Amino acid sequence: MVKNLLVAQSGGPTVAINSSLAGVIKKALSCDEIGTIYGGLNGIEGILQKKLVDLSAICNTEEDIFKLSCTPSMALGSCRLKMKNYKETPEIYQNLFDIFKEFNIGYFLYIGGNDSMDTVAQVSDYAFEHNFDIKVVGVPKTIDNDLIMTDHTPGFGSAMKYIASSIAEVACDTAVYDKQSVTIIEIMGRDAGWLTASSAITRVNGGFAPHLIYIPEIPFSRGTFVEEVKETLKSHQTVIIATSEGIKQEDGTYATAGESTKTDAFGHVALGGAGKYLEKIIHEDIGCKVRSIELSTLQRSASHSLSKTDIDEAMEVGFHGVEFAIKGETGIMASIKRVSNSPYETKIVSVPVKDVANKVKAFPSDWLNADHSLTAQGMDYFLPLIQGEIATPQKNGIQDFFVIK
Amino acid sequence: MVKNLLVAQSGGPTVAINSSLAGVIKKALSCDEIGTIYGGLNGIEGILQKKLVDLSAICNTEEDIFKLSCTPSMALGSCRLKMKNYKETPEIYQNLFDIFKEFNIGYFLYIGGNDSMDTVAQVSDYAFEHNFDIKVVGVPKTIDNDLIMTDHTPGFGSAMKYIASSIAEVACDTAVYDKQSVTIIEIMGRDAGWLTASSAITRVNGGFAPHLIYIPEIPFSRGTFVEEVKETLKSHQTVIIATSEGIKQEDGTYATAGESTKTDAFGHVALGGAGKYLEKIIHEDIGCKVRSIELSTLQRSASHSLSKTDIDEAMEVGFHGVEFAIKGETGIMASIKRVSNSPYETKIVSVPVKDVANKVKAFPSDWLNADHSLTAQGMDYFLPLIQGEIATPQKNGIQDFFVIK
Repeated sequence: MVKNLLVAQSGGPTVAINSSLAGVIKKALSCDEIGTIYGGLNGIEGILQKKLVDLSAICNTEEDIFKLSCTPSMALGSCRLKMKNYKETPEIYQNLFDIFKEFNIGYFLYIGGNDSMDTVAQVSDYAFEHNFDIKVVGVPKTIDNDLIMTDHTPGFGSAMKYIASSIAEVACDTAVYDKQSVTIIEIMGRDAGWLTASSAITRVNGGFAPHLIYIPEIPFSRGTFVEEVKETLKSHQTVIIATSEGIKQEDGTYATAGESTKTDAFGHVALGGAGKYLEKIIHEDIGCKVRSIELSTLQRSASHSLSKTDIDEAMEVGFHGVEFAIKGETGIMASIKRVSNSPYETKIVSVPVKDVANKVKAFPSDWLNADHSLTAQGMDYFLPLIQGEIATPQKNGIQDFFVIK
Repeated sequence: MVKNLLVAQSGGPTVAINSSLAGVIKKALSCDEIGTIYGGLNGIEGILQKKLVDLSAICNTEEDIFKLSCTPSMALGSCRLKMKNYKETPEIYQNLFDIFKEFNIGYFLYIGGNDSMDTVAQVSDYAFEHNFDIKVVGVPKTIDNDLIMTDHTPGFGSAMKYIASSIAEVACDTAVYDKQSVTIIEIMGRDAGWLTASSAITRVNGGFAPHLIYIPEIPFSRGTFVEEVKETLKSHQTVIIATSEGIKQEDGTYATAGESTKTDAFGHVALGGAGKYLEKIIHEDIGCKVRSIELSTLQRSASHSLSKTDIDEAMEVGFHGVEFAIKGETGIMASIKRVSNSPYETKIVSVPVKDVANKVKAFPSDWLNADHSLTAQGMDYFLPLIQGEIATPQKNGIQDFFVIK
């Protein structure tokens, strides 16, 4: 029996999340079991307001799908709605399933991070308990790479590539004057240092930047930091430091200058300021020229620096997510399994979404050597993820995005 | 008689200045009149310390020249030494010309902005007065586009392209939540608003970002600013603002939050903080979600987003600079003359460097309409400069730079 498919996006943007959407559409268009492909605007929150668009009507050519796959951020919009357990708020789930019924939805794909995987788990549990025939599948994304049960997350590789390129370029920039200087690059990562630690790959072509790396997993000490910078300045005139936004003191509090007391709907602390904080320390304790650069939302939206490996894999998880649903799987997440490093090879497998939801995979800090370089194991893990470039469609010298609405 | 050529770079980095160096080398390699091609490290300051490298030995293949042309920043390093008039400090010029004599330099090419063009003027005047046979030629560069007597400056187009791409991407990023927000992009430009104003080209593909633009040439008023943001928020849920770092109040003082009292060797005020200042105003007077992003040195070093037009032209000015010198011209700058807009066509001409030095070309603020869009004239001027992309040489997923030393 033909049923319709509903796909939506949730959580923070990445540059690859639309590629997963493109993969879902590509596969769904080819499935006889699937009728209309609906896109839910603004995640589960928009779906509850019946904000659905017919994607089969607006994105159905190879050209559309390619253009969408290279478009940064989330073409369907996002939300930060934290769904409560269905036993606590049954009326919301009742409402949601009435909408599923109304639109004859048999497949629901939700692309997001660990909070979104919790929603996938809740919705599939509710369907099971209420005997509602719908296949619910999670598709992973996050630049933070902190999801468990997947080798890595789509969006991470392109963010890594952008950060490595930017650090390499900034290192060229700071090197021009015959003068001592320190440049601090602040990288996203509230609890997981994956992205910041991975910036060590920048050295793979023989450079020294980033000379020093600070991540949340390794307690930050002002004294050690100052010593390390001073020591590095003895052999390098210009020093580049990569720091996570979420570096923490020994006592677990954030090592930032400002007050980090604001929290978002998920209880996450709103951060910012680690770079400025380190800048202040260097100004006070060392006194050389210092500048901090916050890569801000650029690092998660820079589609002018895509990793082909990342964008291809993001499409694959979307594509296989639909395949799993068609085969009757539900309450699962399409996950990336690494088969081998050389040649780099992965396959997409399904894992129980309950095991993924609300958990965080910390960066194994023993992958960082004492000199802030990566171990061979770390390098082997990271390097394949940034390989390849994509020539995105251009119009008037600027990327031509796929825009919905 | 065969003479040697000396080339050096000065001032702030751009992404195209090495392309001009590549153009100089390319032409010089083909000239029988030229023997060794020397590169002076760290500009005139390094030359005075005899820090010369033999470029003919290390950069002499098509592959080297291409790799160099795509490498950001300044392969020869830079300096900020302000040469005094040769009548004030004759001993420095004496020293410099002794070095020219020692290395049999018959051609001196200096790539830089308006301060560097002053050096070119001084050196060629000194040579003329002392009957020293050397051809002194300036090659322009600056992301600021504030040099007179050239249609535009190499480095400007790529910076524009990077900024437009980044704004378009950040606009996608901010649009995902169903929530009012303002994002401020702080762009370089101490006195000239060229780069910030040019960001209006981002709208060419139908988007609205940047919705509002603030430049040094138009006095900043907090009241008007707040009104304009409030008005824009009525029709746009997310508003992107492009601001120059150098926006000024009606009385000519910088409109920044912090104290901008530090000055560099040229008497330029060290800026920063316009974005944070506007963020503070919005926080205080409007109260919606607000974030500011400083594009910092990324905008002048992002070789992962080159404009082919810019990189090609940068090479041309270097190439023709050597040609002018060989033909006996001195005390001149190789300048870009726009022949036509459609098809876009330019040619390289020589202009007297004295007329260029120490002058600033302001952005014609009447190119900005009341709704902060560009006039047709402005659009026609800017748009050709960002056309085309370059697939830079890659190694391990990161750009393979040409490194000297």
